[in-house]
Amino acid sequence: MKIQLALDRLSISEAIQVTSLVESSIDWIEVGTSLIKEFGMDSIKQLKQAFPQKAILADTKTMDNAKYELEISFSAGADIVTVMGTAPMITIETCIEIAKKHQKMVMIDLLNTSEEQQKALFSLQDVILCKHIGKDEQELSKNSWNSSGFLKEEATSNILIAAAGGITLETFPQLIKDQVDIAIIGSAITKAANPTEVAKKFNELAKGGILQ
Amino acid sequence: MKIQLALDRLSISEAIQVTSLVESSIDWIEVGTSLIKEFGMDSIKQLKQAFPQKAILADTKTMDNAKYELEISFSAGADIVTVMGTAPMITIETCIEIAKKHQKMVMIDLLNTSEEQQKALFSLQDVILCKHIGKDEQELSKNSWNSSGFLKEEATSNILIAAAGGITLETFPQLIKDQVDIAIIGSAITKAANPTEVAKKFNELAKGGILQ
Repeated sequence: MKIQLALDRLSISEAIQVTSLVESSIDWIEVGTSLIKEFGMDSIKQLKQAFPQKAILADTKTMDNAKYELEISFSAGADIVTVMGTAPMITIETCIEIAKKHQKMVMIDLLNTSEEQQKALFSLQDVILCKHIGKDEQELSKNSWNSSGFLKEEATSNILIAAAGGITLETFPQLIKDQVDIAIIGSAITKAANPTEVAKKFNELAKGGILQ
Repeated sequence: MKIQLALDRLSISEAIQVTSLVESSIDWIEVGTSLIKEFGMDSIKQLKQAFPQKAILADTKTMDNAKYELEISFSAGADIVTVMGTAPMITIETCIEIAKKHQKMVMIDLLNTSEEQQKALFSLQDVILCKHIGKDEQELSKNSWNSSGFLKEEATSNILIAAAGGITLETFPQLIKDQVDIAIIGSAITKAANPTEVAKKFNELAKGGILQ
């Protein structure tokens, strides 16, 4: 299982600083939507420059204008971009096509998708599907990620499964059990009193999980 | 009818330059999603600074993290922000609440919304609903905005109706007929050989439309 560190509601320098504390325990770095909207492509450029050996996911949450958004993100150094599962299918398909052309990847965010949309998305190839409980939904219900009927077996063999939304050390074992490929962890690490120590614990659980 | 000039796929200085050519013929300035994602909040700040007397719409296309995204946008100078109609309802409601607190407005983008979502959104108060044919959809079908069953009468009296997506001088009269409140026009003006002249024509039609 990979750990994706989600960087949100931070300045670029704060994001670089917290990442440097946990670098050896995480796999992918997510430049969060809030960083992209606040600082533009410069946020992606600076994170890639600081951590050139890590895969950078740009959480662009693309809804339209797929070619343009992906090309500026890849030019800035992104290795993976996100598109919303609620976007028009032509936008999702264009993202997959552009990413393939650049030998990059697309993560499709399932936030608020209908069952019908999920069914169509699960039939795609060579994408990452992300089950996502949004920040606003978490604040409403105090709920975070749960596996409720979302198992890796639903997907084709060429789909990776990611999970995001309030994941903590307490809820993490369930993700391992559900064979999630990528666990997206934000504030549980970035807002921890000791981010290095907490990231190490996630990493130990994740690597242990693979061996089980 | 108001005319909203959509600025997309431009540098900030190009956006300011084209707006200065058409300023007297347009009502609202839209800082497009591509400008926000490419240059961050600086795009909103610079447009507001250049045109302090105009309302600035920030096309944030918010899907989550509503409070944070709206507050940074309002701080940067935005008067109106956008939220996706496909976002969780709690995100849309939070946008409306935050905007009210700041005496600002929210435009809800109906791109790819289901009939059920549209029905819920049409029952809201004090919002702008935007019928939107996305750029990617336009490129697929070569279609642009059409009124197909989307009439102002569907909405409550406190809802304004906007329309976006490939609107040209040829399709514009239909919007007037349908009593659209805000026509969002991008490349028909920004990519015209003579933007000043084309914007004037839109403005004459819009103001004529009100008198009809």
